[in-house]
Amino acid sequence: MKSDTFQMSMLFDFYGELLTDKQKELFDLYYNEDLSLTEISELAGISRQGVRDAIVRSETILRDTEDKLGLVKKYAGYDRRLEEIRQAAAYIAQANTRIRSFEIAKSVDRILQLTGEMQTWLLKDSAIS
Amino acid sequence: MKSDTFQMSMLFDFYGELLTDKQKELFDLYYNEDLSLTEISELAGISRQGVRDAIVRSETILRDTEDKLGLVKKYAGYDRRLEEIRQAAAYIAQANTRIRSFEIAKSVDRILQLTGEMQTWLLKDSAIS
Repeated sequence: MKSDTFQMSMLFDFYGELLTDKQKELFDLYYNEDLSLTEISELAGISRQGVRDAIVRSETILRDTEDKLGLVKKYAGYDRRLEEIRQAAAYIAQANTRIRSFEIAKSVDRILQLTGEMQTWLLKDSAIS
Repeated sequence: MKSDTFQMSMLFDFYGELLTDKQKELFDLYYNEDLSLTEISELAGISRQGVRDAIVRSETILRDTEDKLGLVKKYAGYDRRLEEIRQAAAYIAQANTRIRSFEIAKSVDRILQLTGEMQTWLLKDSAIS
């Protein structure tokens, strides 16, 4: 029954807090810790079918939310653009190896730092401030 | 009763699709079209109190979702970083007025274009692909 793990992890990162604590726990064991339904069943002290139902229910909530809000899909577009910005900054840095402008080098570094922070955030549910 | 309009518009942009069509319609008339409760009541053919209740209910859904997911808050951090990237690109452009490197000018333009697209998206619920 396992769905695409990367997709499920992304959905969980964006919308996981809409699940109950119990749903989150079981989902996490299955998709992030990669335990089997049987292992989770033993660990959580509920039936294998109960684990399965809870995970399917969680998947449905996460998918329905993405169908409505589409934020995961949109942020894929963000990620592509961040990568392009970093590429453009790398071209500037390359041109600057001849010119050796300190201001340009400093600004390129800043762009790489900022885009790096934004990319890190895209990949996991960490706070950005 | 009106809450901060800008904040409510942001919440609506991110999470509006979690509301029913009726809730969306009333919320939009109140916060985006700036109609009064009485005007909406006449337009929608429901009591003023009914309109009020529906809008308060929608506000609660949007606020609760933000309390759980915090995506609006996070993207304020994004917006600040995009502005800083554009500033760094402007410094490079300025340094380049002396150097006149075509590669640098082209890369700066690309960075401004990409960050511009990302900012536009942050401000409204348009598709990004």
